Amino acid sequence: MQIPSSPKGTRDFYPDDMVWREHIFSSWESTCRLYGFEKYDGPMFEHLELFTKKSGDEIEKQLYAFADKAGRHVALRPEITPSLARMVAARGTSLKMPLRWYSIPTLFRYERMQKGRLREFAQLNMDILGVADVSADAELIAAAVAMMQALGFTHEDFSVRVSSRSLLEELFVSMGIAREKHAAVYAEFDKGAKAGPGEIHGELARLLGGKAAADKVLDVFAVGSLDELRNRNPGSQAVAPLVELFGLIDAYGLDDYVAFDLGIVRGLAYYTGIVFELFDKKRSLRSIAGGGRYDRLVGLYGGPDTPAVGFAAGDVVLAEMLKAKNVVVPRPPRSDVFVVSIGEQTPRKAVIMTQALRKAGVRTEFALREVGVGKQMKLAHNCRARLAVFVGGEEEKGRQVRIRDMDAGEEWLVSDGALVETVRDKLLQQQ
Amino acid sequence: MQIPSSPKGTRDFYPDDMVWREHIFSSWESTCRLYGFEKYDGPMFEHLELFTKKSGDEIEKQLYAFADKAGRHVALRPEITPSLARMVAARGTSLKMPLRWYSIPTLFRYERMQKGRLREFAQLNMDILGVADVSADAELIAAAVAMMQALGFTHEDFSVRVSSRSLLEELFVSMGIAREKHAAVYAEFDKGAKAGPGEIHGELARLLGGKAAADKVLDVFAVGSLDELRNRNPGSQAVAPLVELFGLIDAYGLDDYVAFDLGIVRGLAYYTGIVFELFDKKRSLRSIAGGGRYDRLVGLYGGPDTPAVGFAAGDVVLAEMLKAKNVVVPRPPRSDVFVVSIGEQTPRKAVIMTQALRKAGVRTEFALREVGVGKQMKLAHNCRARLAVFVGGEEEKGRQVRIRDMDAGEEWLVSDGALVETVRDKLLQQQ
Repeated sequence: MQIPSSPKGTRDFYPDDMVWREHIFSSWESTCRLYGFEKYDGPMFEHLELFTKKSGDEIEKQLYAFADKAGRHVALRPEITPSLARMVAARGTSLKMPLRWYSIPTLFRYERMQKGRLREFAQLNMDILGVADVSADAELIAAAVAMMQALGFTHEDFSVRVSSRSLLEELFVSMGIAREKHAAVYAEFDKGAKAGPGEIHGELARLLGGKAAADKVLDVFAVGSLDELRNRNPGSQAVAPLVELFGLIDAYGLDDYVAFDLGIVRGLAYYTGIVFELFDKKRSLRSIAGGGRYDRLVGLYGGPDTPAVGFAAGDVVLAEMLKAKNVVVPRPPRSDVFVVSIGEQTPRKAVIMTQALRKAGVRTEFALREVGVGKQMKLAHNCRARLAVFVGGEEEKGRQVRIRDMDAGEEWLVSDGALVETVRDKLLQQQ
Repeated sequence: MQIPSSPKGTRDFYPDDMVWREHIFSSWESTCRLYGFEKYDGPMFEHLELFTKKSGDEIEKQLYAFADKAGRHVALRPEITPSLARMVAARGTSLKMPLRWYSIPTLFRYERMQKGRLREFAQLNMDILGVADVSADAELIAAAVAMMQALGFTHEDFSVRVSSRSLLEELFVSMGIAREKHAAVYAEFDKGAKAGPGEIHGELARLLGGKAAADKVLDVFAVGSLDELRNRNPGSQAVAPLVELFGLIDAYGLDDYVAFDLGIVRGLAYYTGIVFELFDKKRSLRSIAGGGRYDRLVGLYGGPDTPAVGFAAGDVVLAEMLKAKNVVVPRPPRSDVFVVSIGEQTPRKAVIMTQALRKAGVRTEFALREVGVGKQMKLAHNCRARLAVFVGGEEEKGRQVRIRDMDAGEEWLVSDGALVETVRDKLLQQQ
C-alpha cells in the first residue's frame, strides 16, 4: 500500500526534529521560571462558543470546528487565552492575585499555508492577571525580550514595537471617527503594518467617507516619537501610561530593544490598553510575538473584573530565525554508556551490568541481539555513546572490566568493584 | 453571563494541578532517558484511515472524527502507535535500527466516563523497533517497572503479568478453534480478565459451538505456571521465548514484579507475540499499563517489515494511585526572591534589583503595584518566596541591603556589591 501521509500543515517530530522543539521549549520554560511564572494548561478543544464569544462568529472560518458524538459544537483551540480567561472566571475571587501564568499549548488554525505559518503549532503564552498598572505591561515586555535573549537573539536581531489602544481610541475620537468604526480602522492598520500605509489609503477613505479623512489619519500615524505625539496632543490622557512604560523600560535596561510605534494596533478586537509586537530586524518574517492588555475578557466570560496583560510567541517563526542564524542544536547521546558483550551466548551479563549502571543514574543500553563485537561497537557509535564497557572475555577472569572512550579511543582496565564509580567520574570529566 | 464550562471528560490544569502532571511527566522523562530512549511526536490529529487501517472501522465509534474544511476525514489521535508506525514506514530503511523511541502524547477517546478514564488524557509510550529477539520485550518490561519505581511504587503496589499471543494461537489451533475466531476469543478473554472467567463462559460456548468447547478453553487458561504449561504441551514452539523472557527478567532482578498469566490476552488485534499488562495489587483500578509485540504494523502501512514491541501507560490511573498512596507533591516557590520597596514612589529601584538578580539566574519578582511594605510581604508569602530583599529605606544610605529569610524570619545586612552573591549562597544553603 501507499504509505499514509500526515495531515497538511502538521509536523512529524522525529528525534532529530524533536531536538529543536525541546531546545525552544526548554528555553521558554527557563525564562518563565526565572521571571516567576507558573505553568497552567487547558483542554485541546473547547466548546465553540468560548471562541466566538471573544472573537465573533468570523473566527469559525479559522477553526477546526466540529460536532462531537453528542452533538456538542466544539473546536480545537486556536489560542489559549479564552481557556485562561474561562479558568480564571470559574475560580471567581478565590485566586490570589496577581497571577503570573504561562503555558506552552499546541494550537490549531485552519489557515492558508505560508512561510512561518502552519495549521498545528506551539506557542509560548505569558500572562499577568490582577494588575491594572503599566508595570505589568513592562514586566511582560521584559520577559518577551528575555525569552529571545535566552535563545541567543540580541537587539541586532529583533525589536519590540509598542503602541496603545487607549491612545488610538483617543486620537480617533478627537478626529471625529465614530466608535463603531474603530475596530475596522484597527484591522486596516494591522494590514498596513504588513503591506505599507499606501496600500490602505483607499480602504480608509471608503471607511471614513473621503480622502481628506484618510490623509488626516495617516498623518497622525506618521508621528515619529512619543515626545512629538505628546507635543501635538497636550490634553491627552492616554500618553501618560506610555511615558511611564518607557521609564520602566529604561529601568529594565531595554532601551536598545523597545521603540514606540503608533502603527502597531494588533488586529484583535479585545485589547484595551498597551499593545506590542516583536519583529525581526529584517522584517522578512511575520511578527515573532505579540501581546497587550485585555482588561475585559474575564468579565466577558462572567468572572469578576480582572485586569490582564499577556503575550504569545509561536515556535515556527522562532525555529526559522534560529536556522537563519545558523544555530546548531546538537543531538545528545541516546545513552552515555553502551555495554558490549564479548563471547557470550546470552545477554545475561550485559543485562546485569546495564542495570547496575542505570541504578547509579548512568544512561545505559546494550545490543538487544546476539551479534559480534564489531557490530556491537557500530551500535554503540549509532547511539552516540560516550563510553563502551566490555563484559565477558579475558579480563573477567581477573575480575576486571575494560572501559573505552568512544571518541578518544583511550581504554582503561578497572576492578569490577570500582566500575560504576569510574564510569561516573569519566562521564563527569567529559562534560 | 454564565461562566462557560470545559468539555466533558477534559481537564483544566491550574498551577496546583499542573504540579501533579509535571511530577508524572518529569518522572517519565527521566526513566526514558536513563533507559536510552529518544523522544518523538506526531500530529494531534491524523487522517481517519490511519486508525481504521490498524483497528478496523469499529474504532470510529471511539474517535473524535470529523471532516476538515477541505472535506478530509480526520480524527484526534486515540493512540500514537499508528503515527509512530507511519513515521517509521515513511523513512523506509534509512533509520538506523534499533529505534528506542518514547513519546508523551495527549490522546482523545470518546468513551463512557468512568473511574480512571477520561476523554482527553496523556500517555507514556515506549517502543523498540528493529529487534525480533525477546530481549527487546524484556527491556521494555524492565523499563515499565523502572517507570513505576521512579514514581515510588514497589512490588507491593503493582505486578506485571505476561502472556504470549503466539502461544495462545498455538493452543487455540491445537484445540481446533478456527483462526478466524481467534480475535473474538481474545476479546472475550480481555473482558474476562476484568469481569472474571465465569462471566464469559456463555459467550465462549456460543462462539465455539458448545459448552464442552468453552470448558476446554477455560481449563487450558486455568494453567498455574509456565512449567505446568510446558509439561502439558511438550511439542510447543511458543513456550521457548517465554522461558527465555523469564530468564532475562531474572537477570534484570525483577522476579518479584513479573508473573506468567496466560489470561492476559490484550484486546487489540494487532499483537503478534509477547503481551503484558501492569495491574495494581488490589485490582481496584483498570490496568496501569500494557503492551506487547506488534511485528506487522509498519509493514501494514507500506513500510519495510520491522519487528516492534512497545507499551503505554496513562496518566489518569497513575495520578489516582499516587493520591491513594498519599503521595504529596509540594508546589514549588513561584519565585525564590521577592524584592520589597521601602518608601518608593515608583518601582524603578525594585526593577533594577530584580533584573540584577535574574541576570545571576535567581528567580525573582516584585510587587507590580505601589503598595505598602506590609502588603508587599503578603505578596511575597503568596508566591512562597524563600527570601525577601529590601530596596530603599535607611540601609540604602549606607550602601547596604537587607535580606530576610521568609520562613525563619532571620535577617542579614550586606553591602550592595555583595548582594547577588549572598542571595545565591543563602538559596544554595536552604536546598
